[in-house]
Amino acid sequence: MTRIRAAVIGATGYTGAELARTLHQHPHVDLIHLTSRSQVHQPYADTYGQFRDLIDLVCEEEDVTQLADTADVLFMALPHGHAAQKTTAALLEKTRVIDLGADFRLQNKDDYDTWYAMTHPQPALLPQAVYGLAEWHRGAIRQARLIANPGCYPTCSLLAALPLLKEKIITPEIIIDAKSGVTGAGRALNLAVHFTECNESLKAYALGNHRHIPEIEQGLRMFGKATASITFTPHLIPMNRGILATLYAPLAGDFNTQDIQAVFERYYKTEPFIRLLPPGVSPETRWVKGSNFCDIGFHLDSRNRRVILVSAIDNLGKGAAGQAIQNMNLLFGLPETTGLMSVPLFP
Amino acid sequence: MTRIRAAVIGATGYTGAELARTLHQHPHVDLIHLTSRSQVHQPYADTYGQFRDLIDLVCEEEDVTQLADTADVLFMALPHGHAAQKTTAALLEKTRVIDLGADFRLQNKDDYDTWYAMTHPQPALLPQAVYGLAEWHRGAIRQARLIANPGCYPTCSLLAALPLLKEKIITPEIIIDAKSGVTGAGRALNLAVHFTECNESLKAYALGNHRHIPEIEQGLRMFGKATASITFTPHLIPMNRGILATLYAPLAGDFNTQDIQAVFERYYKTEPFIRLLPPGVSPETRWVKGSNFCDIGFHLDSRNRRVILVSAIDNLGKGAAGQAIQNMNLLFGLPETTGLMSVPLFP
Amino acid sequence: MTRIRAAVIGATGYTGAELARTLHQHPHVDLIHLTSRSQVHQPYADTYGQFRDLIDLVCEEEDVTQLADTADVLFMALPHGHAAQKTTAALLEKTRVIDLGADFRLQNKDDYDTWYAMTHPQPALLPQAVYGLAEWHRGAIRQARLIANPGCYPTCSLLAALPLLKEKIITPEIIIDAKSGVTGAGRALNLAVHFTECNESLKAYALGNHRHIPEIEQGLRMFGKATASITFTPHLIPMNRGILATLYAPLAGDFNTQDIQAVFERYYKTEPFIRLLPPGVSPETRWVKGSNFCDIGFHLDSRNRRVILVSAIDNLGKGAAGQAIQNMNLLFGLPETTGLMSVPLFP
Amino acid sequence: MTRIRAAVIGATGYTGAELARTLHQHPHVDLIHLTSRSQVHQPYADTYGQFRDLIDLVCEEEDVTQLADTADVLFMALPHGHAAQKTTAALLEKTRVIDLGADFRLQNKDDYDTWYAMTHPQPALLPQAVYGLAEWHRGAIRQARLIANPGCYPTCSLLAALPLLKEKIITPEIIIDAKSGVTGAGRALNLAVHFTECNESLKAYALGNHRHIPEIEQGLRMFGKATASITFTPHLIPMNRGILATLYAPLAGDFNTQDIQAVFERYYKTEPFIRLLPPGVSPETRWVKGSNFCDIGFHLDSRNRRVILVSAIDNLGKGAAGQAIQNMNLLFGLPETTGLMSVPLFP
Repeated sequence: MTRIRAAVIGATGYTGAELARTLHQHPHVDLIHLTSRSQVHQPYADTYGQFRDLIDLVCEEEDVTQLADTADVLFMALPHGHAAQKTTAALLEKTRVIDLGADFRLQNKDDYDTWYAMTHPQPALLPQAVYGLAEWHRGAIRQARLIANPGCYPTCSLLAALPLLKEKIITPEIIIDAKSGVTGAGRALNLAVHFTECNESLKAYALGNHRHIPEIEQGLRMFGKATASITFTPHLIPMNRGILATLYAPLAGDFNTQDIQAVFERYYKTEPFIRLLPPGVSPETRWVKGSNFCDIGFHLDSRNRRVILVSAIDNLGKGAAGQAIQNMNLLFGLPETTGLMSVPLFP
Repeated sequence: MTRIRAAVIGATGYTGAELARTLHQHPHVDLIHLTSRSQVHQPYADTYGQFRDLIDLVCEEEDVTQLADTADVLFMALPHGHAAQKTTAALLEKTRVIDLGADFRLQNKDDYDTWYAMTHPQPALLPQAVYGLAEWHRGAIRQARLIANPGCYPTCSLLAALPLLKEKIITPEIIIDAKSGVTGAGRALNLAVHFTECNESLKAYALGNHRHIPEIEQGLRMFGKATASITFTPHLIPMNRGILATLYAPLAGDFNTQDIQAVFERYYKTEPFIRLLPPGVSPETRWVKGSNFCDIGFHLDSRNRRVILVSAIDNLGKGAAGQAIQNMNLLFGLPETTGLMSVPLFP
Repeated sequence: MTRIRAAVIGATGYTGAELARTLHQHPHVDLIHLTSRSQVHQPYADTYGQFRDLIDLVCEEEDVTQLADTADVLFMALPHGHAAQKTTAALLEKTRVIDLGADFRLQNKDDYDTWYAMTHPQPALLPQAVYGLAEWHRGAIRQARLIANPGCYPTCSLLAALPLLKEKIITPEIIIDAKSGVTGAGRALNLAVHFTECNESLKAYALGNHRHIPEIEQGLRMFGKATASITFTPHLIPMNRGILATLYAPLAGDFNTQDIQAVFERYYKTEPFIRLLPPGVSPETRWVKGSNFCDIGFHLDSRNRRVILVSAIDNLGKGAAGQAIQNMNLLFGLPETTGLMSVPLFP
Repeated sequence: MTRIRAAVIGATGYTGAELARTLHQHPHVDLIHLTSRSQVHQPYADTYGQFRDLIDLVCEEEDVTQLADTADVLFMALPHGHAAQKTTAALLEKTRVIDLGADFRLQNKDDYDTWYAMTHPQPALLPQAVYGLAEWHRGAIRQARLIANPGCYPTCSLLAALPLLKEKIITPEIIIDAKSGVTGAGRALNLAVHFTECNESLKAYALGNHRHIPEIEQGLRMFGKATASITFTPHLIPMNRGILATLYAPLAGDFNTQDIQAVFERYYKTEPFIRLLPPGVSPETRWVKGSNFCDIGFHLDSRNRRVILVSAIDNLGKGAAGQAIQNMNLLFGLPETTGLMSVPLFP
């Protein structure tokens, strides 16, 4: 089998590091380029000591056009706005792009401009960008040149909500109370994520205006066939990795636990990365740490005719790098699980 | 001023330790007895080294009748079922009881029997037990001999919800997504709260059946004048202290942010322990750690006609020992803030 | 009693916040000024939410000359080099200065220039600066206008080593392996203290060149009457507060456990802030958190004729703000424990 | 290549779980048996949710004789005393045993009886037990039927000290100040490792009497050719995984940094699991988490003629399961790195 030559653009962020780790361990990938603005010309292992003696690449400049000469796929792990500037039609003729940022997730340019408070730099490419929620979009992903890798919160929320929504077990007035570890905030200098500032504390943030709201609503519409207006509240949790999303959705009819279980099994029983938990067992982020799994559980709150859905992912795994590599596997015709079945790291 | 002689029954739990700390620092209290089953006859400071050279009491047996001979008030910090067995009409003639457990919180014996899966040991005393949510029940508390100190989740939830519910700004179909530090689970041996098991992880628990559900609903009814059926999901967070409750409530009419702010100010502006945060500022548990404060913020989710309420307390402070001592101050005619205004400990 | 009017210069660092907390609770102090470069003209409680509704001061500029008109004492909590620039003979005629930084700790100007890699801005004041290790320097402190508050590691190390060294139970070839929580690194923006970077990890740092080395050696010389050359290795621990120092010192003669215990009791039995632990009990930082205590234990390693000393402090308490206020009490003729006997906060 | 059939005895402890994870991912191993006393007949994934859908084994009883019928190698991860009772000459004829407990580490039965306070159950087997410090004992390991896998602290300490000791760069009066994450304490119910009890704190423990002392001294003698009497102080750190050992050793002569570096390179340059850090870079446990690496750095403290050595391992990896599988690879003639080169998990 030919090997895939991969480059990571923006390798010194946490998502970049998780891409590097997973790509390095992938049996059919050669990781050939890592770029960084802050660490250019420095050995990558000087930034991330875990790679010492394992990855000897030196950080390169972000010249994507040149990198595309040798790379079969570029993973972009950049702040929003940057990937859209770098990605052009010409670039996409030379290579494939998997963007882990937000630039190509929203299909409607106006949504982007509104929620990201800037003019989208490359709206002409939006129609060909494929939203990479692998379990719900495989066919399109396989044909894509440009993949918009879903956000961490949308991945965790959509995977839990979609089967019940699509089957009209629940109505779309969903409330999502999500909790994330601190890596979700990225690696830019920021007092708010200093150890002392978030250790031993807990807060909600971005009430009512988090940028993942339009992305989740778009996903519910695209895959769940429902016009949704959600309430979404993220919280910051003093731990490194992990997202837990707790969803509250009104029952659409007179369904019982078995009905719900049956729908989930129909959709997900054969999905390798979705683990339906037995009745009464609730997801915990520790069981998915370092992996591409999404664990899902639910409780039927009969008193109030609501379903409580709980889903857990590793925000850097299924919520970013893991799903990106799952998409790469689809793009290159590999079995979808290739390089992604390592056991979550607990304790 | 005469001094109050206080005893803590069940002093080696975390609530007991916080009672001891706060009572020791109270200017009008003599802490004269500490009891413990597991550490009887041992110096209290051998269990809790923070008290070395500060409290030299030795743990005594739980003979409440005898302790009542010398104590003006007994604080009971025991597993449910125990306080109700120890508290009798005779005892209440000799002393006052502030029960930090669940035994006297539910006014309806059947609710207790159902939710706690046992027959209430002392239902005859329920009518005279006063639910000690100080901000909403001062008059009754001042006259009480037996106070049922509210649970940690109910305190945090009710203080946030009651003004808007009572003023019919919101309807009672409230969803409460609550998050607690690990001290909330107590100090009994339990693998689930070993460091390794909860560090770096996050989970929901007791989905749909947490025992604070009927207590919250009772509080909404008693003080909010509304029949409520709530959805309540607690989560375990890897930190020692603190509860953050995020409440989602439907708007009852066409109210705006100023309307909501005005109601909160009307109810709470002069409350010494409730801190209304400025618009756009969201509570964080670190700001209330070690204190009796409850910080409250809100966001009007106009898109979905919901109010998001966020409140933070220290589960051992306002959620247990702090509120108990606030109640003691009311019982004994002291200014309510006596001994309770120390600055929260951050960092 | 006249009240002490206090100002904190550099109030938005962690040491500044701990000073504010402790001064606010001090029965004889009026906290009248807080300064900050980054937050000037902003309410202090906007930076540190724990003070909301408790301290309503607004951050002022660092004009110490003007502040000295109204303040009886200035606490300086600034990066090294700054306090020495601000402190002048004229200033010291108007007010007293307690410097929590490093500028006046080393009595020898050359040591300062060497270890801090800069020319001391105010060497003429060094002779009148009094090293504020309260338990060992009370007489001089009471007469001082300018106090050099000891560093956190030196405080923890010296209090443990001095009695045995002065009594020649141990020789001065001491190895100090110290461990500190992350607040010790301060609050300046710094990737190395981001949550994700130090959580779930552990490292030694500044091997062989930490600036507290000459300070510890000076203290051993001043108070222990011994010329010492120490090996000192600090480590960064994933927790907010606390220092634990483990010292390894050669036995100077044929002494046993009782001899060592007797020396410690002779020196420290009546010291209010030093708690000698019973034989076999080892200090833990949780027992001193939020307090001015220093807990000390030891083990005689007879096999190797060494004494292992272990001491624990709160780096922000006895290691900074607590000791500074202890010094203030001495300066102003108050009982040394005034405002400093609150119970350590555990859990 | 024939596959190795492996069994883990005591699979529900943390070491057992790490063995299961690593063996499951090993390309030449079939993990066929997992035993547990507490969870017998329960699916293993019910205890450790990370294995859901990955390992479907059910916990079996600890009948090692029967398990040996089908297993080529038994990994024993049991409390001390247990493996020695189960391991017999007859068992060793049927299968190979890698004991991760302490029973076969000390070659001298009397040392065992003294330090473990019990009579060794199987002293006749001690002569054939091979101490499995792979980098220093490969030849013997390859021939063994019974391997005593080294303790976590000894592994970390010996790997750092041995080259310099053997080459007489340092003398054997070594002080080891070691720090371990909480998984090192195991998974048995124990209040001292409850989250609340060790979070946000730090302590030394087992001063002067930790059972790894004789094991380290034996290793220094066996491989370093020096009679050593060490001072060893372990500390408990609030994190899950990782050991950092800081060693203080007297220089034996007039050596400089280059001399030391040269010795380390001579011994370790080709060792796949030992990573010598560049001068000035100090090990951090986060760089080795989840791996079999040992990172080593040093500082020459010329002022005091001491070498400070710092080494970091994952206590469950190189300190337990990783090293055990490295030994298994040697036993079965596989390349030593097989299945062990995954990237450490950071963040």
